[in-house]
Amino acid sequence: MPEPVSIPTHWYNIAGDLPDAPPPHLHPGTREPVTAADLEPLFAAGLIEQELSTETDIAIPEPVREAYATYRTTPLLRARSFERALGTAARIYVKYEGVSPVGSHKTNSALAQAYYNSVDGVKKLTTETGAGQWGSALSFACAKFGIDLEVWQVRASFESKPYRRHLIEVYGGTVHSSPSDLTASGRKVLDEQPDTPGSLGIAVSEAVEVAAGDPAARYALGSVLNHVVLHQTVIGLEAVEQLRAAGEEQADVVFGCAGGGSNLAGLSFPFLREVLHGRATTRVVAAEPAACPSITRGEYRYDHGDIVGLTPLLKMHTLGQDFIPDPIHAGGLRYHGMAPLLSHTVELGYVQGTAVAQTDAFAAAVEFARSEGIVPAPESAHAIAAAAEYARTVTEPEVIVIGLSGHGQLDLPAYAAYLHGELG
Amino acid sequence: MPEPVSIPTHWYNIAGDLPDAPPPHLHPGTREPVTAADLEPLFAAGLIEQELSTETDIAIPEPVREAYATYRTTPLLRARSFERALGTAARIYVKYEGVSPVGSHKTNSALAQAYYNSVDGVKKLTTETGAGQWGSALSFACAKFGIDLEVWQVRASFESKPYRRHLIEVYGGTVHSSPSDLTASGRKVLDEQPDTPGSLGIAVSEAVEVAAGDPAARYALGSVLNHVVLHQTVIGLEAVEQLRAAGEEQADVVFGCAGGGSNLAGLSFPFLREVLHGRATTRVVAAEPAACPSITRGEYRYDHGDIVGLTPLLKMHTLGQDFIPDPIHAGGLRYHGMAPLLSHTVELGYVQGTAVAQTDAFAAAVEFARSEGIVPAPESAHAIAAAAEYARTVTEPEVIVIGLSGHGQLDLPAYAAYLHGELG
Repeated sequence: MPEPVSIPTHWYNIAGDLPDAPPPHLHPGTREPVTAADLEPLFAAGLIEQELSTETDIAIPEPVREAYATYRTTPLLRARSFERALGTAARIYVKYEGVSPVGSHKTNSALAQAYYNSVDGVKKLTTETGAGQWGSALSFACAKFGIDLEVWQVRASFESKPYRRHLIEVYGGTVHSSPSDLTASGRKVLDEQPDTPGSLGIAVSEAVEVAAGDPAARYALGSVLNHVVLHQTVIGLEAVEQLRAAGEEQADVVFGCAGGGSNLAGLSFPFLREVLHGRATTRVVAAEPAACPSITRGEYRYDHGDIVGLTPLLKMHTLGQDFIPDPIHAGGLRYHGMAPLLSHTVELGYVQGTAVAQTDAFAAAVEFARSEGIVPAPESAHAIAAAAEYARTVTEPEVIVIGLSGHGQLDLPAYAAYLHGELG
Repeated sequence: MPEPVSIPTHWYNIAGDLPDAPPPHLHPGTREPVTAADLEPLFAAGLIEQELSTETDIAIPEPVREAYATYRTTPLLRARSFERALGTAARIYVKYEGVSPVGSHKTNSALAQAYYNSVDGVKKLTTETGAGQWGSALSFACAKFGIDLEVWQVRASFESKPYRRHLIEVYGGTVHSSPSDLTASGRKVLDEQPDTPGSLGIAVSEAVEVAAGDPAARYALGSVLNHVVLHQTVIGLEAVEQLRAAGEEQADVVFGCAGGGSNLAGLSFPFLREVLHGRATTRVVAAEPAACPSITRGEYRYDHGDIVGLTPLLKMHTLGQDFIPDPIHAGGLRYHGMAPLLSHTVELGYVQGTAVAQTDAFAAAVEFARSEGIVPAPESAHAIAAAAEYARTVTEPEVIVIGLSGHGQLDLPAYAAYLHGELG
């Protein structure tokens, strides 16, 4: 039996390790690099420090580490049955974040963000959510650290997936369908497109607007920004150690799904640290939905994180701040942009994008479920599909790591639609 | 850090350790003790041997142990936040089975039953399910061991909880609402009570009838019988070791929910082994629903496991084979009888029953979710409520273990109903 891997003591900040520094975020008004003071109305001090930091190792506060201990370390599973089903010579490992209380990786940043806000005495947080993984994770984290929460959930998910909305409510959070008539941003969209399915970009605008207008409130983002990516590196830090404990020399390819990018970045950056320090030759693949392909089809340029333009300008792969993707089931991937740090590693050649069609994602996910038992979240299914397509071509032993960012038990109607041939 | 606990190599059979032997099952026709030959039309040889065995330690076959390794060992969590919320002096530990692929303890027996049937070359299994935990667990296990599966799901759950039905389908199983017009048993009930919400007793009759009429098929039961109880002892075997690794001398009280009884028996029997061998003084509490209180309100006598009387006569606490409980959300607890082995330990004084009202169960579960993050299955919520009520009275340090048999993410509409004051 390999020795147990423990919960990391530090997050890993790739910004301090890259050969070229990542382009700074810009103030939306002045177009100058944002300062800590610019970000104060929205974020807790500890998070702003992380957002702008170039230190490679940032200590995880003990209360966050204690909260992590309720579900971490998460398993790195060898998917032997799935290997046999694919007929591959590769050894496939799955890093499974679905054991967290809400069923996805989102708790890794939610707990950290709630903690730093509690340190600052913040009484209320606002946020956006797509399928609801982030909203439910933050609702749990807010319950844990004594903060009220108001969530704007993208309408397509709010209406078709009530279970995660209920989950947010179980933890004590309040949920609104976005666009809502509670904000100027929401009313503007409703005027122009009353039948819109909504988008993460719209929901971000609404949540930012409310936080900016309330001195006792702050905003929390579930992906994209540097500090969110940082918190998610616990995934990869554990996986690197676990792979070593399993007797593997290195990961040859790492696959993860990418919506806003924090899941894939969190998994892959600790593997890229090995590459950056000459200890491995790992390649990283970002599996994005064909309906929202920011890396493979977007431009790499400065753009806003939201539809109205309230957030800083971020240098990233983007389909444009007003892009509204089709309402696919992987609601967590319906984001027009990509984490600037992940976009930067794409530009530097460390990460490649690939686009996956929704039906291909579900086909691979069903095959995975029947092999390994775990029903993947539709988001994670994109990573599984990309990895499976690759693995089928592998005839010599190599090591594949797949990020399984969450389970799909709250997405079962989407699976039923797929099985009954009713998916678009 | 405590040393890692490993997956048990043997199941524990309390029948070989009790001071008085448990009363045998009786043939429904002759009323003589059942023989292996009597059970052959329904069960695999390996399972029949276990059903009648009085050996205390029964080896877990390697393929089953390998399948267990995809999710076991399951965590034993110290619920510090919940302790603070309750204001108790007790140290509360939670044995959490919700990390299994389907989200409950049911996989522990499903994998074993599918394995032994695959050894016998069985092509198809039939079974009943309430809320769907057992049906989905067996569907996964059948996918794993290459067996077709047909499931009769209690109508109340079939109609109100489609997600677990979809889960059964994802793994490849077929689901019917019970009572159905596919069996004589089902048609009889439909004739007499067309609006019945169904019951596990009816669904058992349907599944048994179909298996008995098909030489290539066998039947699988998700609780009650000795071999099912046996498989579930992996829960308690791990928990005893984990508690020791956490530095505790013993569990003072063990709480588990009890429907058919396999969950509580699986958790508690390894703790009772310590008691039977004079190494501990652990008490065990069976939390059952007030709507279906077989231990606290039923009679201890021979009764059938199903409504029609196709199963052997079992000596157990029973509300009567034709008792149809109200359609509470804890569908897995809606069973008229109780595992004979558990009933026997109740009679011998090792286990006490307590009845919990549905709203009390949800109130405790919400408090637990906001403290620890995990949303309990409504079944498990009964154990949490009973433990919480007790813990609030504890003023000196002692150790409480709660069996958290599954997560409640597929039961979120029930939580929403509770939060909005719409529960009966």
